[in-house]
Amino acid sequence: MHYPRHLMALIDQLRKLPGVGSRTAERYVFEILRWDSAEQQAFGQAIAQTPQALHNCSECGALIDPGACTLCTVERASTQVMGVVATYRDLCSIEQTGEFLGLYHVLGGLLSPLRGIGPQQLRCEGLCRRIEEHGIRELILAFDATLEGDATALYLRERLQSIPNLKISRLAFGIPMGSSLDYIDGSTLARALSGRHDF
Amino acid sequence: MHYPRHLMALIDQLRKLPGVGSRTAERYVFEILRWDSAEQQAFGQAIAQTPQALHNCSECGALIDPGACTLCTVERASTQVMGVVATYRDLCSIEQTGEFLGLYHVLGGLLSPLRGIGPQQLRCEGLCRRIEEHGIRELILAFDATLEGDATALYLRERLQSIPNLKISRLAFGIPMGSSLDYIDGSTLARALSGRHDF
Repeated sequence: MHYPRHLMALIDQLRKLPGVGSRTAERYVFEILRWDSAEQQAFGQAIAQTPQALHNCSECGALIDPGACTLCTVERASTQVMGVVATYRDLCSIEQTGEFLGLYHVLGGLLSPLRGIGPQQLRCEGLCRRIEEHGIRELILAFDATLEGDATALYLRERLQSIPNLKISRLAFGIPMGSSLDYIDGSTLARALSGRHDF
Repeated sequence: MHYPRHLMALIDQLRKLPGVGSRTAERYVFEILRWDSAEQQAFGQAIAQTPQALHNCSECGALIDPGACTLCTVERASTQVMGVVATYRDLCSIEQTGEFLGLYHVLGGLLSPLRGIGPQQLRCEGLCRRIEEHGIRELILAFDATLEGDATALYLRERLQSIPNLKISRLAFGIPMGSSLDYIDGSTLARALSGRHDF
């Protein structure tokens, strides 16, 4: 049987969500159809208004409501440490640990020649400027443990090494908490071994 | 940390989808944020336009694009058999089996005094009228095997029994295909036993 065109269009849209196939999209659509029209419109408009309702802070690059950026304006405990992340989502992950009290800088991605992402596509200029403006002493590169993450870290180290008194560090690589060695892949174990510390 | 207000609003909206909690809603939202603004607007508008883009057929009650109902206008193989279902979703399930070639009637729900749904809230008048108009010989009640389904089936049998030459049937209850008796609950097994057939 053929669904009405609009229903097919809804299913196609919902299938774009991560991990959502046709069956789940159908479930979502039939749930949405049960809502009254005000609820349907509120849901749709919330998503459609996203481009107007969220901005990138012109300083740190984090996603913010229109107005001031709380991560730039709120007094942070250590303003001479800066965490560099690829995306706002990474920033949220770090902020949720409660272990980092410095400033942030969101690059907007990682270097990826294959996908045409070079330094010009990222907020690298702004990073250099902010390091000087804030007199940053330590820069923590908090990138994925992937080829792109490695490339971006190497690039930034090269570019920033001329800045005096700037310590550049990167997140530790090793065994995730709670995991057992049986289940760890070889490259993680090799990284954990080379990064072993005195005990 | 606090997400921007709009991001919280998006998460709250996506959590309304069935089986979606905060974590999944966050995943969806961060995926939506990766889309460009045209994609975000297309997604949102598809949902927001649902009240205008989908209608209930004034005859059978199925969901349709504006215009003619394919289930009423297309020549159905057996126009003297009518399947009565609670929702359009149930209609789709039956239509997808390819085993039913008659007309449909979507009630719009099942009787449920607890939720304030009486015969007036359902398309019962239309059903009576259509049975006479189409000269229906058999009415198949295809309702859930729940208290509400039972109540609705009993109500309709009572109400329609005065119509001459109308056979009223209900879907068979029993063991689902492919299941083993170990895993079947007692009430299903009891229904399967009382509904046993010659073999």
